This record gives sequence, C-alpha cells and structure tokens, in this order.
Amino acid sequence: MSNTRVPPSIEPAAADAVAPCCPPLAERPLTAEEAEVAARMFKALGDPVRLRLFSAVASHEGGEACVCDISDVGVSQPTVSHHLKKLKEAGLLTSERRGTWVHYRVEPSVLAAMGKLLTAAPR
Amino acid sequence: MSNTRVPPSIEPAAADAVAPCCPPLAERPLTAEEAEVAARMFKALGDPVRLRLFSAVASHEGGEACVCDISDVGVSQPTVSHHLKKLKEAGLLTSERRGTWVHYRVEPSVLAAMGKLLTAAPR
Repeated sequence: MSNTRVPPSIEPAAADAVAPCCPPLAERPLTAEEAEVAARMFKALGDPVRLRLFSAVASHEGGEACVCDISDVGVSQPTVSHHLKKLKEAGLLTSERRGTWVHYRVEPSVLAAMGKLLTAAPR
Repeated sequence: MSNTRVPPSIEPAAADAVAPCCPPLAERPLTAEEAEVAARMFKALGDPVRLRLFSAVASHEGGEACVCDISDVGVSQPTVSHHLKKLKEAGLLTSERRGTWVHYRVEPSVLAAMGKLLTAAPR
C-alpha cells in the first residue's frame, strides 16, 4: 500500500458509499457485494433520530445545514454528534467546518441512488 | 379497546407499516412519529442478507416468490426464515401458504412509498 502516488482522499469511506452501487432491488437479486454497500446506507437511516437528522439536513435550504440548525430532535448534543458521525460514515452526509460551526450536506446523488434502488421494476 | 365492532385484520402491524407514512425526507423535517415508522422500514433493509432476500422476492416474476426460490443466499434455512419474518414485521413483505410452500410478496405500494421518501426536493 503506497501512499506516495495517490493523493489521499479526505473521506474515502464516504466517497465509496456515495457511488451508486446497485440496480433497483426489483430488477434482479442483489449480489452479496452490492447488498453490503446498500445495506450500510439503509442501516444508517434505520434509526428514528438519525432519520430525523438526515431529513432536517436534506430539507434545509440548499440541502445543507449548520449543526446549530438541526439539533432540535430531543436528544443531547453528544448524541446528535454521534448520529451525524454515523451518517457521515455511511456516506449519506458530508461535513465542513466554517468558523465556529460544522455544516452538514446531503449529496443529491446519494438520495437519487437510494431512490433508484427502490424503484419498481417494469412489469 | 373493543374488538367487537372492528373486524380483526390478519396482519395489522404489517398493514400499518405499508401505509405511506411520510413526505419525502428532503421536503421538510420528519416528525418523531413519522421517523419511527420510516426508520422501521429502513432498518429492515439494513442487513445484507435481508436486503438480498427482499431483492430476490421483489425481482422475481410478478413480485412474489416461493421460499424455495429465494434461499440461495448462503445462510441456513432457519436464518432465512428469521429474516423473512423480520421483513414481514416491518410491512415490507406479505406471505401466503400454498400447499407445501410459503410464498412471499412485495407490495408495489411499499416500494413506491419508500422510493418517494428518498426523492429529492424541488429546489
């Protein structure tokens, strides 16, 4: 593993997960590898608090929000941070610090890729 | 709680989950109640084996499959049964016994409702 030729990516795990991985679930059976990637994204949304945080970011102006905008979900700030980290690790959110606050962003391509997974197959 | 007036549903939990629950995640922040329902569906798909089983049913002819058609996912039959039960409990599959075999079915409305959750908001 050389790190001299390839510039390190800031968030390689997130970038991998963001890439559309799979055909629609109803098109053909997923392979084991495809299912690993897609299940990671679904699992990240499989918690009510994480889902509310994701929805809060996704529905905020421009698809991004300061952490100060989205903490109104009835859990402590450390819990909010924990869940935002999980969403980042799954590739669903990216983040950027600007001054005091960290801003979170949903990549539209991620929503589109997950939505595509759930489209019905033509019959 | 009277059970004399309302005929009992065969699968009330599943029927509740099947009902489209929520606006697109990017339209407005989900409420706590909406997030509970939607997270349950995402969580059911958040396991690679369950996701493969769901995809195997969804992509099978007519959106339904005999359990004998979909057990090729590298886990034991009891494990397959366990995961199919979880998918039923989440309202993602329904089942019906026909002779020897149980047949599983994806309701297209469930796929459509989950896909709608993941559509991008108009900007």
